[in-house]
Amino acid sequence: MGSCPPGTVEFWFELGSNYSYPGVMRIEEAAVERGAKLAWRPFLLEPIFRSFGWESSPFVLQTEKGAHVWIDVERQCRKQEIPWKKPSSFPQRAILPMKVALVGTDQPRIGACKRMMLLNVRRDAEIDAGAPVRDVLEGLGLPADSIINAAPSEQTKSRLRDQTTAAQPRGIFGAHTFFVGDDVFWGNGRLEDAWDMAAGMAAGCPQSVS
Amino acid sequence: MGSCPPGTVEFWFELGSNYSYPGVMRIEEAAVERGAKLAWRPFLLEPIFRSFGWESSPFVLQTEKGAHVWIDVERQCRKQEIPWKKPSSFPQRAILPMKVALVGTDQPRIGACKRMMLLNVRRDAEIDAGAPVRDVLEGLGLPADSIINAAPSEQTKSRLRDQTTAAQPRGIFGAHTFFVGDDVFWGNGRLEDAWDMAAGMAAGCPQSVS
Repeated sequence: MGSCPPGTVEFWFELGSNYSYPGVMRIEEAAVERGAKLAWRPFLLEPIFRSFGWESSPFVLQTEKGAHVWIDVERQCRKQEIPWKKPSSFPQRAILPMKVALVGTDQPRIGACKRMMLLNVRRDAEIDAGAPVRDVLEGLGLPADSIINAAPSEQTKSRLRDQTTAAQPRGIFGAHTFFVGDDVFWGNGRLEDAWDMAAGMAAGCPQSVS
Repeated sequence: MGSCPPGTVEFWFELGSNYSYPGVMRIEEAAVERGAKLAWRPFLLEPIFRSFGWESSPFVLQTEKGAHVWIDVERQCRKQEIPWKKPSSFPQRAILPMKVALVGTDQPRIGACKRMMLLNVRRDAEIDAGAPVRDVLEGLGLPADSIINAAPSEQTKSRLRDQTTAAQPRGIFGAHTFFVGDDVFWGNGRLEDAWDMAAGMAAGCPQSVS
């Protein structure tokens, strides 16, 4: 994964997560607007949840909060003026597209994550399959077959596992999560706080409270 | 409790809740600023948590999220420019001050909730006792003794129980929570959304998504 230059916002996300959707949809434009450095960090939520003894998303397990969360996501999407339709299956498995994202984090094609999530929330498509990933990559004029064929390699599998293992000791308990150095910010509503801290660090005046 | 006129924001809070603190500290000024109607709704969180099978706050039970929450509360307080020091005991029991708040929800003294929470987060005082409640009420020039002596009555006990029981079927799973009609908004970060919906309803154009 490598370390980040000061003032970088790390964006830890999961393509199968409902709240990651509004995050993925705005993170790049927001980084450009703020002139901030951005590091994409795809990781799998499921092993994190399993480590807590949970068999699924807390939004499935805790029905009261779960019921509210869908209303809240819809409201947030409306505010961001992005499309939204509740996927009929949740949480989505997204191992293949997450592998493709992982090997592409340092490339411009990482923006394809937006198209991937849109497939899920607009067309209600299952995204953990070759066809939707191919659609997205081809739509960007990328060599879909070679990317998809390389994705299941032991090396990529192990990188994704390492990435997820790295998330745990850093205190990640959900997605999406931002880091600025060691400071953690949870959820779409804290992105501005993360940018502010990153801007302070880039200017040499960190404002960590942790 | 009675029903609310259209465009009212109901503010369901608990004096022992950490996130209720920044909410309590800004709710009145925010209502005045927005020209919005505000209804204070003190309720006990503990019975809600118990109904989920939890023995304490989720911030205590889920250590990973719990660790983050204190950093987040501190950041939110700094943004709001209000004092903050983590109470040495959490969650706080606050039965007596909650009873006092409940019988005073329609009176100007409800603003004393701010002083009550400040006692907890500034002076690290346990608040479920006569002395701190008396301090707050006397500081406001109110007849502290008669208010405190009336608080343990069967009638008030039963009102607080009813209030908490009323919270459950409305889908409340934490504090603080806002309602605008049947629409629920969870947490300090959603207050602006609640005001916006209330303003829409007051103008006769509700924008419910639920």
